[in-house]
Amino acid sequence: MTVLILTCHQDVTTDMVVAKLHERGVPLVRFDPADLPGEAAMSAEYVSGDFHGYLSSEGRLLSMSSLRSIWVRRPGEPAADAPEPSEWLTAESGQALYGMLYSTTARWMNHPCVSAQARCKPWQLRIAHRSGFAVPPTLITTFPRVARQFAEQYRDIVVKSASGPPSSDPPVTVPTTRIGPDTDFTDVAAAPTLLQQYIAKRADIRLTSVGGRLFAARKESESGEVDGRYAATGHAWEPVEVPDRIAKAVHDYTGLAGLAYGAFDFAEDAEGVWWFLECNQGGQFGFVELETGQPIAEAVASWLAATAP
Amino acid sequence: MTVLILTCHQDVTTDMVVAKLHERGVPLVRFDPADLPGEAAMSAEYVSGDFHGYLSSEGRLLSMSSLRSIWVRRPGEPAADAPEPSEWLTAESGQALYGMLYSTTARWMNHPCVSAQARCKPWQLRIAHRSGFAVPPTLITTFPRVARQFAEQYRDIVVKSASGPPSSDPPVTVPTTRIGPDTDFTDVAAAPTLLQQYIAKRADIRLTSVGGRLFAARKESESGEVDGRYAATGHAWEPVEVPDRIAKAVHDYTGLAGLAYGAFDFAEDAEGVWWFLECNQGGQFGFVELETGQPIAEAVASWLAATAP
Repeated sequence: MTVLILTCHQDVTTDMVVAKLHERGVPLVRFDPADLPGEAAMSAEYVSGDFHGYLSSEGRLLSMSSLRSIWVRRPGEPAADAPEPSEWLTAESGQALYGMLYSTTARWMNHPCVSAQARCKPWQLRIAHRSGFAVPPTLITTFPRVARQFAEQYRDIVVKSASGPPSSDPPVTVPTTRIGPDTDFTDVAAAPTLLQQYIAKRADIRLTSVGGRLFAARKESESGEVDGRYAATGHAWEPVEVPDRIAKAVHDYTGLAGLAYGAFDFAEDAEGVWWFLECNQGGQFGFVELETGQPIAEAVASWLAATAP
Repeated sequence: MTVLILTCHQDVTTDMVVAKLHERGVPLVRFDPADLPGEAAMSAEYVSGDFHGYLSSEGRLLSMSSLRSIWVRRPGEPAADAPEPSEWLTAESGQALYGMLYSTTARWMNHPCVSAQARCKPWQLRIAHRSGFAVPPTLITTFPRVARQFAEQYRDIVVKSASGPPSSDPPVTVPTTRIGPDTDFTDVAAAPTLLQQYIAKRADIRLTSVGGRLFAARKESESGEVDGRYAATGHAWEPVEVPDRIAKAVHDYTGLAGLAYGAFDFAEDAEGVWWFLECNQGGQFGFVELETGQPIAEAVASWLAATAP
C-alpha cells in the first residue's frame, strides 16, 4: 500500500516526511498535478460497478487500489506545466485527477473539499468559539461607522487580511497592523475589513495537530510586537506543554472541521491565556521542527503510513 | 425567519420560487454576491463566544440570526460588480460573505463545499455505482492506447467534457459527440479525455430531487440522437413515474453526496433501463416545470420555507 504526496517540486517539508517514510520502508509516490498532462499520465475506468485507476509519473505506475493515504501538501494547479496550458485544460485535468482520487478509499490529509471550508477565516472564528477557545473580539465589516464603533470600544486593535496576501508578481506581504480609534475608516466601504482586538502577547504559540497528536511550540515576543512572521526577534521556538483545555478544544475543532492536520496560531497573554488567532489547514511545520526538535514529520509519516481503522 | 436566495439579477427560475414563497407569506431576501461591496454591505461580529451578522441589500437589513435557509441558485462572483473589482477584492469579499453565512445555523440548498465535490463528474460515476444506478462504462484517460482499446471493446462510444464548456466570449458549446473505434486517439495525450459507451436511447429522463421529493420527466428521442440539449426534436417533456429502484438509488446518492437538490440526467434504453449520465447539483428545472406542470418550484419553496427538523 502506497502513500501519495501531492506537492510541487521544490518542497523541503515534503523531503522531511519522505525521509521518515523511507526509514519505515513505506512505498510512496510524489506527484505534482501541474505535470498532468505532459510529464505525467492517468487513466480511470468506471465499468460494471467497479473502478480502476492509475497514475503514471516519473516512470512509476501507481494503482488507485493500492493507495493507502493522500497527503495534500502544496500541489501545483493541474496542467500548469502542460505543453499547451489553458484554463479549460486545468479544469478538465483537475476533474479527471481529483475525480479519480476522490473515487478511492484512501485516507486524506486533508481532503480538498474539507480544506476549502477550513480556509475560511470567519468560519474558523465561529468553530473556535464552539470548540471552547478564547477568541479575540473580531469584526468584519463594510460599514465605516461600525468599524469606528468597534475601534472606540476596544481602543487597541489590529487590521488584517481575511484571504491572505494577493497573488502578485513580485509578491507583496500584508502584515497584521496595529491601529487605534483615531484611524480614518472611510475606505472600509470599499472592501470588507477584518478588525480584531489587539492581544498584548508575551509569546506566540504554534500548535501543530497531526491526527490527534499535538506539538506546541512557544516563542517569546517583544513588547508591542504584532506580526512575528515579518520580524527577526532573536527569540527561538521552544517546545511547550499543551494545557488540557486547549487539547480538548483542538480535538473538538479538528473534529468539527474534519481536519487530519492543522497548524494553530495563538497569542499568549500576560495571564497565560492562549488566544486563538487562526488554524491553517496547510500550515508549515518545518521551521518549528528544526528549532524545537519535535518529531512532527515523523508524526505525519506515521499517520500517512497507518492503514485504515 | 427569512429565506436568503443567492443569485444573479436575471434569473427566471428564481422568479418562479419567489412567487411561491410570496404565496406562503415567507419573507425572503434575494441577493447577488457580485454587489458586495458597492450596492450591498455586510457586517459580522465575533465577540465573547457569540456571533452576530447582517447583510444590507436594496434598503433591507437581514440579520443572520433570522436566517431560515439559503438557496445557492446562480450567485455572481463576490465583488464582480464592485466599483474597483480585483481578484484580491473577490477573495476578501468571498471570505467575509461566505464565512458569515457558514457561521449561521441556516439550512443550505446546497452548501458550496458540498457542491464543489458534487460537481466532480468522475466522482459522480463512483457514487452512482455505489448507489445502485446503471452507469455506462466510462473511461477518462491520457493514454491513446487505452482510449483505442476502450473504443474497440465498446465500438459505439461518445466523447464528452468532464468540466463543461470553457468559459469564453463568445460562449462555445461542447456537445457530447458520438465516435467509432476508427477514431484517431493520438491527441488524448494532450488532455484527459472522457469516453463513454453510447447508450441507444429511446428517451431522455430528467429527474429532479428536491429534499427527497422526486419529479421525473421523459422526452422521446430520435433514433441515434446523442445530445438533446442542442437539438429541437419536436418532442416534449412529459411526467413519468419513478421506478422504485431508481427512487432508492436517488435517495442513496443524495445522501452520500449531501445534496438537498440535484437534477439527474438518464438515458432510457430500449429495455426501459435508466442509465445514469450525471447529477447536476445546480441544474435548471424551469423548462421541465413549464412543459410538464410538475410543481418543482413549489417543492423548492416548501423546502426553503420549512424550519429545521
